[in-house]
Amino acid sequence: MIGTIQIREAIPSDAENLLNHLQKIAVETGFMTMGAEGPGKTVEAKQKELESILESDVTVLLVALDEKEIIGIAEIHGNESPKLKHIGDISISIAKDYWGIRLGTTMMERLIEWANGPTSQLKRLELTVQARNERARHLYEKMGFKLEAIMPRGVKDEGDYLDVCLMSMMIGEI
Amino acid sequence: MIGTIQIREAIPSDAENLLNHLQKIAVETGFMTMGAEGPGKTVEAKQKELESILESDVTVLLVALDEKEIIGIAEIHGNESPKLKHIGDISISIAKDYWGIRLGTTMMERLIEWANGPTSQLKRLELTVQARNERARHLYEKMGFKLEAIMPRGVKDEGDYLDVCLMSMMIGEI
Repeated sequence: MIGTIQIREAIPSDAENLLNHLQKIAVETGFMTMGAEGPGKTVEAKQKELESILESDVTVLLVALDEKEIIGIAEIHGNESPKLKHIGDISISIAKDYWGIRLGTTMMERLIEWANGPTSQLKRLELTVQARNERARHLYEKMGFKLEAIMPRGVKDEGDYLDVCLMSMMIGEI
Repeated sequence: MIGTIQIREAIPSDAENLLNHLQKIAVETGFMTMGAEGPGKTVEAKQKELESILESDVTVLLVALDEKEIIGIAEIHGNESPKLKHIGDISISIAKDYWGIRLGTTMMERLIEWANGPTSQLKRLELTVQARNERARHLYEKMGFKLEAIMPRGVKDEGDYLDVCLMSMMIGEI
Protein backbone atom coordinates (compact mmCIF):
# COMPACT_ATOMS: atom_id res chain seq x y z
CA MET A 1 0.00 0.00 0.00
CA ILE A 2 1.25 3.47 -0.89
CA GLY A 3 1.14 5.98 1.98
CA THR A 4 1.49 9.74 1.86
CA ILE A 5 4.36 10.77 -0.37
CA GLN A 6 6.56 13.68 0.63
CA ILE A 7 8.61 15.67 -1.88
CA ARG A 8 11.53 17.82 -0.70
CA GLU A 9 15.07 18.91 -1.64
CA ALA A 10 17.69 16.24 -1.05
CA ILE A 11 20.03 16.72 1.92
CA PRO A 12 23.50 15.17 2.48
CA SER A 13 22.17 12.47 4.83
CA ASP A 14 20.02 11.12 1.94
CA ALA A 15 23.19 9.83 0.24
CA GLU A 16 22.91 6.12 1.06
CA ASN A 17 19.14 6.02 0.53
CA LEU A 18 19.65 7.76 -2.85
CA LEU A 19 22.31 5.31 -4.02
CA ASN A 20 19.99 2.41 -3.11
CA HIS A 21 17.19 3.95 -5.17
CA LEU A 22 19.50 4.45 -8.16
CA GLN A 23 20.80 0.88 -7.96
CA LYS A 24 17.23 -0.44 -7.81
CA ILE A 25 15.86 1.49 -10.78
CA ALA A 26 19.02 0.83 -12.84
CA VAL A 27 18.00 -2.83 -12.76
CA GLU A 28 14.20 -2.58 -13.01
CA THR A 29 13.88 -0.42 -16.14
CA GLY A 30 15.71 -0.23 -19.45
CA PHE A 31 14.76 3.42 -19.82
CA MET A 32 17.66 4.77 -17.76
CA THR A 33 21.01 5.76 -19.25
CA MET A 34 22.64 4.03 -16.30
CA GLY A 35 22.63 0.25 -16.65
CA ALA A 36 22.81 -2.61 -14.15
CA GLU A 37 26.33 -1.45 -13.22
CA GLY A 38 24.53 1.13 -11.04
CA PRO A 39 25.74 4.56 -9.92
CA GLY A 40 29.22 3.35 -8.90
CA LYS A 41 29.69 6.01 -6.23
CA THR A 42 30.59 5.81 -2.56
CA VAL A 43 28.24 7.17 0.09
CA GLU A 44 30.91 9.76 1.01
CA ALA A 45 31.22 11.00 -2.58
CA LYS A 46 27.43 11.24 -2.90
CA GLN A 47 27.25 13.19 0.38
CA LYS A 48 29.77 15.73 -0.93
CA GLU A 49 27.80 16.02 -4.19
CA LEU A 50 24.56 16.66 -2.27
CA GLU A 51 26.26 19.35 -0.18
CA SER A 52 27.43 21.22 -3.27
CA ILE A 53 24.01 20.86 -4.95
CA LEU A 54 22.36 22.52 -1.94
CA GLU A 55 24.68 25.51 -2.39
CA SER A 56 24.28 25.69 -6.17
CA ASP A 57 22.01 28.22 -7.93
CA VAL A 58 21.96 26.18 -11.17
CA THR A 59 21.25 22.69 -9.85
CA VAL A 60 18.39 21.34 -7.75
CA LEU A 61 17.65 17.76 -6.68
CA LEU A 62 14.23 16.73 -5.36
CA VAL A 63 13.45 13.41 -3.71
CA ALA A 64 10.06 11.76 -3.20
CA LEU A 65 9.74 9.65 -0.06
CA ASP A 66 7.27 6.97 1.02
CA GLU A 67 7.91 6.82 4.75
CA LYS A 68 11.73 6.86 4.85
CA GLU A 69 12.36 5.24 1.49
CA ILE A 70 13.33 7.34 -1.55
CA ILE A 71 11.05 6.23 -4.38
CA GLY A 72 11.63 9.05 -6.88
CA ILE A 73 14.23 11.61 -7.93
CA ALA A 74 13.83 14.74 -10.06
CA GLU A 75 16.79 16.91 -10.95
CA ILE A 76 17.70 20.03 -12.86
CA HIS A 77 21.41 19.86 -13.52
CA GLY A 78 23.01 23.16 -14.46
CA ASN A 79 26.34 24.09 -15.94
CA GLU A 80 28.94 26.32 -14.29
CA SER A 81 30.32 27.64 -17.59
CA PRO A 82 29.12 31.26 -18.10
CA LYS A 83 28.07 30.55 -21.69
CA LEU A 84 25.90 27.58 -20.66
CA LYS A 85 24.74 28.66 -17.21
CA HIS A 86 21.22 29.37 -18.50
CA ILE A 87 20.66 25.74 -19.59
CA GLY A 88 19.23 23.15 -17.20
CA ASP A 89 19.25 19.41 -17.91
CA ILE A 90 16.26 17.61 -16.45
CA SER A 91 16.15 13.99 -15.34
CA ILE A 92 13.45 12.11 -13.45
CA SER A 93 13.39 8.54 -12.16
CA ILE A 94 10.58 6.83 -10.29
CA ALA A 95 10.50 3.32 -8.79
CA LYS A 96 8.25 0.99 -10.77
CA ASP A 97 5.82 0.38 -7.86
CA TYR A 98 4.99 4.08 -7.98
CA TRP A 99 4.33 4.47 -11.70
CA GLY A 100 0.85 5.62 -12.74
CA ILE A 101 0.07 7.79 -9.69
CA ARG A 102 1.03 11.10 -11.41
CA LEU A 103 4.18 11.37 -9.30
CA GLY A 104 6.23 12.26 -12.40
CA THR A 105 3.84 15.10 -13.22
CA THR A 106 3.97 16.44 -9.66
CA MET A 107 7.76 16.31 -9.50
CA MET A 108 8.12 17.94 -12.93
CA GLU A 109 5.76 20.74 -11.86
CA ARG A 110 7.96 21.36 -8.82
CA LEU A 111 11.11 21.50 -10.98
CA ILE A 112 9.56 23.97 -13.42
CA GLU A 113 8.37 26.09 -10.50
CA TRP A 114 11.96 26.17 -9.17
CA ALA A 115 13.31 26.98 -12.66
CA ASN A 116 10.92 29.95 -12.88
CA GLY A 117 11.67 31.05 -9.31
CA PRO A 118 13.63 34.04 -8.04
CA THR A 119 16.99 32.25 -7.53
CA SER A 120 17.05 30.68 -10.99
CA GLN A 121 18.79 32.13 -14.06
CA LEU A 122 17.62 29.35 -16.34
CA LYS A 123 16.32 30.23 -19.82
CA ARG A 124 16.30 26.80 -21.45
CA LEU A 125 15.33 23.42 -20.00
CA GLU A 126 16.29 20.29 -21.91
CA LEU A 127 16.03 16.54 -21.50
CA THR A 128 16.55 13.32 -23.39
CA VAL A 129 14.14 10.40 -23.36
CA GLN A 130 14.15 7.09 -25.22
CA ALA A 131 11.75 7.28 -28.18
CA ARG A 132 10.06 4.02 -27.07
CA ASN A 133 9.27 5.47 -23.61
CA GLU A 134 5.89 6.83 -24.67
CA ARG A 135 4.59 7.35 -21.15
CA ALA A 136 7.43 9.75 -20.34
CA ARG A 137 7.31 11.51 -23.72
CA HIS A 138 3.61 12.13 -23.24
CA LEU A 139 4.25 13.59 -19.77
CA TYR A 140 6.97 15.94 -21.09
CA GLU A 141 4.78 17.12 -23.98
CA LYS A 142 1.92 17.79 -21.57
CA MET A 143 4.28 19.93 -19.47
CA GLY A 144 5.22 22.04 -22.50
CA PHE A 145 8.38 20.40 -23.81
CA LYS A 146 8.86 20.34 -27.59
CA LEU A 147 10.68 17.70 -29.61
CA GLU A 148 13.96 19.08 -31.03
CA ALA A 149 15.54 15.95 -32.48
CA ILE A 150 15.32 12.19 -32.74
CA MET A 151 18.88 10.96 -32.28
CA PRO A 152 19.61 7.61 -33.98
CA ARG A 153 21.72 5.23 -31.85
CA GLY A 154 21.32 7.62 -28.92
CA VAL A 155 21.53 4.73 -26.43
CA LYS A 156 22.37 1.01 -26.46
CA ASP A 157 20.19 -1.36 -24.47
CA GLU A 158 20.60 -5.13 -24.41
CA GLY A 159 22.56 -5.05 -27.65
CA ASP A 160 20.12 -2.81 -29.54
CA TYR A 161 20.83 0.75 -30.64
CA LEU A 162 17.75 2.85 -29.87
CA ASP A 163 16.44 6.27 -30.91
CA VAL A 164 16.57 8.97 -28.25
CA CYS A 165 14.46 12.15 -28.29
CA LEU A 166 15.93 15.54 -27.41
CA MET A 167 13.21 17.81 -25.98
CA SER A 168 13.36 21.37 -24.69
CA MET A 169 11.30 24.19 -23.21
CA MET A 170 12.19 27.88 -23.17
CA ILE A 171 11.47 29.70 -19.89
CA GLY A 172 11.95 33.15 -18.37
CA GLU A 173 12.43 36.51 -20.03
CA ILE A 174 15.45 37.24 -22.21
CA MET B 1 54.96 32.52 -41.84
CA ILE B 2 53.43 29.08 -41.34
CA GLY B 3 55.93 26.22 -41.35
CA THR B 4 55.29 22.49 -41.59
CA ILE B 5 52.45 21.46 -39.32
CA GLN B 6 52.68 18.19 -37.45
CA ILE B 7 49.60 16.34 -36.16
CA ARG B 8 49.96 13.69 -33.45
CA GLU B 9 48.25 12.32 -30.33
CA ALA B 10 48.68 14.51 -27.26
CA ILE B 11 51.09 13.30 -24.57
CA PRO B 12 51.19 14.31 -20.88
CA SER B 13 54.09 16.75 -21.38
CA ASP B 14 51.84 18.78 -23.74
CA ALA B 15 49.75 19.89 -20.73
CA GLU B 16 51.08 23.44 -20.31
CA ASN B 17 51.26 24.11 -24.04
CA LEU B 18 47.64 22.84 -24.37
CA LEU B 19 46.32 25.09 -21.61
CA ASN B 20 48.02 28.09 -23.28
CA HIS B 21 46.32 27.25 -26.57
CA LEU B 22 42.90 26.92 -24.88
CA GLN B 23 43.32 30.23 -23.05
CA LYS B 24 44.30 31.94 -26.30
CA ILE B 25 41.38 30.67 -28.41
CA ALA B 26 38.89 31.23 -25.57
CA VAL B 27 39.60 34.95 -26.01
CA GLU B 28 40.04 35.22 -29.78
CA THR B 29 36.78 33.60 -30.92
CA GLY B 30 33.18 33.68 -29.69
CA PHE B 31 32.52 30.26 -31.24
CA MET B 32 33.84 28.27 -28.27
CA THR B 33 31.65 27.11 -25.40
CA MET B 34 34.44 28.16 -23.08
CA GLY B 35 34.59 31.92 -22.57
CA ALA B 36 37.36 34.32 -21.58
CA GLU B 37 37.48 32.61 -18.17
CA GLY B 38 39.59 29.97 -19.94
CA PRO B 39 40.05 26.29 -19.12
CA GLY B 40 40.53 26.86 -15.36
CA LYS B 41 42.74 23.79 -14.87
CA THR B 42 46.17 23.34 -13.37
CA VAL B 43 49.02 21.90 -15.43
CA GLU B 44 49.10 18.88 -13.07
CA ALA B 45 45.38 18.16 -13.53
CA LYS B 46 45.74 18.45 -17.32
CA GLN B 47 48.72 16.08 -17.25
CA LYS B 48 46.67 13.46 -15.39
CA GLU B 49 43.81 13.91 -17.87
CA LEU B 50 46.19 13.42 -20.82
CA GLU B 51 47.59 10.25 -19.23
CA SER B 52 44.11 8.74 -18.89
CA ILE B 53 43.14 9.77 -22.44
CA LEU B 54 46.18 7.92 -23.80
CA GLU B 55 44.94 4.74 -22.07
CA SER B 56 41.28 5.18 -23.10
CA ASP B 57 39.66 3.27 -25.96
CA VAL B 58 36.78 5.75 -26.25
CA THR B 59 38.64 9.07 -26.19
CA VAL B 60 41.38 10.45 -28.43
CA LEU B 61 43.01 13.87 -28.45
CA LEU B 62 45.05 15.11 -31.40
CA VAL B 63 47.20 18.22 -31.40
CA ALA B 64 48.52 20.21 -34.38
CA LEU B 65 51.93 21.82 -33.85
CA ASP B 66 53.76 24.59 -35.69
CA GLU B 67 57.32 24.10 -34.44
CA LYS B 68 56.72 23.58 -30.71
CA GLU B 69 53.52 25.58 -30.38
CA ILE B 70 50.12 23.86 -30.25
CA ILE B 71 47.91 25.66 -32.77
CA GLY B 72 45.00 23.22 -33.02
CA ILE B 73 43.19 20.53 -31.05
CA ALA B 74 40.78 17.84 -32.25
CA GLU B 75 39.11 15.46 -29.84
CA ILE B 76 36.67 12.58 -29.73
CA HIS B 77 35.38 12.38 -26.21
CA GLY B 78 33.76 9.07 -25.30
CA ASN B 79 31.58 7.97 -22.43
CA GLU B 80 32.45 5.22 -19.96
CA SER B 81 28.80 4.22 -19.36
CA PRO B 82 28.07 0.90 -21.17
CA LYS B 83 24.83 2.28 -22.66
CA LEU B 84 26.62 5.30 -24.16
CA LYS B 85 30.05 3.87 -24.88
CA HIS B 86 29.33 3.82 -28.64
CA ILE B 87 28.85 7.61 -28.81
CA GLY B 88 31.77 9.97 -29.43
CA ASP B 89 31.54 13.74 -28.96
CA ILE B 90 33.74 15.68 -31.35
CA SER B 91 35.32 19.06 -30.75
CA ILE B 92 37.87 20.97 -32.78
CA SER B 93 39.60 24.27 -32.11
CA ILE B 94 42.14 26.03 -34.28
CA ALA B 95 44.06 29.24 -33.57
CA LYS B 96 42.85 32.11 -35.76
CA ASP B 97 46.19 32.58 -37.55
CA TYR B 98 45.76 29.06 -38.93
CA TRP B 99 42.20 29.33 -40.24
CA GLY B 100 41.68 28.81 -43.99
CA ILE B 101 44.53 26.32 -44.57
CA ARG B 102 42.28 23.21 -44.40
CA LEU B 103 43.71 22.23 -41.02
CA GLY B 104 40.19 21.56 -39.65
CA THR B 105 39.48 19.20 -42.55
CA THR B 106 42.75 17.35 -42.05
CA MET B 107 42.23 16.96 -38.31
CA MET B 108 38.61 15.83 -38.76
CA GLU B 109 39.75 13.23 -41.31
CA ARG B 110 42.23 11.88 -38.76
CA LEU B 111 39.53 11.68 -36.08
CA ILE B 112 37.12 9.82 -38.37
CA GLU B 113 39.93 7.46 -39.36
CA TRP B 114 40.54 6.71 -35.65
CA ALA B 115 36.79 6.28 -35.03
CA ASN B 116 36.63 3.70 -37.84
CA GLY B 117 39.84 2.00 -36.71
CA PRO B 118 40.36 -1.37 -35.02
CA THR B 119 40.46 -0.11 -31.40
CA SER B 120 37.26 1.94 -31.68
CA GLN B 121 33.77 0.75 -30.69
CA LEU B 122 32.11 3.99 -31.78
CA LYS B 123 28.85 3.80 -33.77
CA ARG B 124 27.69 7.40 -33.52
CA LEU B 125 29.71 10.63 -33.72
CA GLU B 126 28.07 13.86 -32.63
CA LEU B 127 28.99 17.49 -32.25
CA THR B 128 27.47 20.88 -31.56
CA VAL B 129 28.29 24.05 -33.46
CA GLN B 130 26.90 27.57 -33.26
CA ALA B 131 24.42 28.13 -36.10
CA ARG B 132 26.22 31.36 -37.08
CA ASN B 133 29.56 29.53 -37.50
CA GLU B 134 28.96 28.78 -41.18
CA ARG B 135 32.56 27.91 -41.95
CA ALA B 136 32.54 25.07 -39.40
CA ARG B 137 29.04 23.86 -40.34
CA HIS B 138 30.11 23.64 -43.97
CA LEU B 139 33.18 21.62 -42.98
CA TYR B 140 31.13 19.15 -40.93
CA GLU B 141 28.55 18.71 -43.70
CA LYS B 142 31.33 18.06 -46.19
CA MET B 143 32.69 15.34 -43.87
CA GLY B 144 29.28 13.61 -43.77
CA PHE B 145 27.64 15.04 -40.65
CA LYS B 146 23.88 15.60 -40.79
CA LEU B 147 21.91 18.27 -38.95
CA GLU B 148 19.75 16.72 -36.19
CA ALA B 149 18.43 19.80 -34.42
CA ILE B 150 18.70 23.55 -34.11
CA MET B 151 18.66 24.23 -30.38
CA PRO B 152 17.30 27.69 -29.43
CA ARG B 153 19.28 29.44 -26.68
CA GLY B 154 21.92 26.70 -26.95
CA VAL B 155 24.66 29.14 -25.90
CA LYS B 156 24.94 32.68 -24.55
CA ASP B 157 27.60 34.97 -25.98
CA GLU B 158 28.07 38.61 -25.00
CA GLY B 159 24.51 38.78 -23.66
CA ASP B 160 22.84 37.16 -26.67
CA TYR B 161 21.20 33.74 -26.68
CA LEU B 162 22.24 31.97 -29.87
CA ASP B 163 21.03 28.94 -31.82
CA VAL B 164 23.27 25.88 -31.67
CA CYS B 165 23.21 23.03 -34.21
CA LEU B 166 23.37 19.40 -33.15
CA MET B 167 24.97 17.29 -35.89
CA SER B 168 25.74 13.58 -36.10
CA MET B 169 27.22 10.87 -38.27
CA MET B 170 26.62 7.13 -37.95
CA ILE B 171 29.72 4.94 -38.41
CA GLY B 172 30.70 1.28 -38.22
CA GLU B 173 28.59 -1.88 -38.51
CA ILE B 174 25.82 -2.62 -36.05
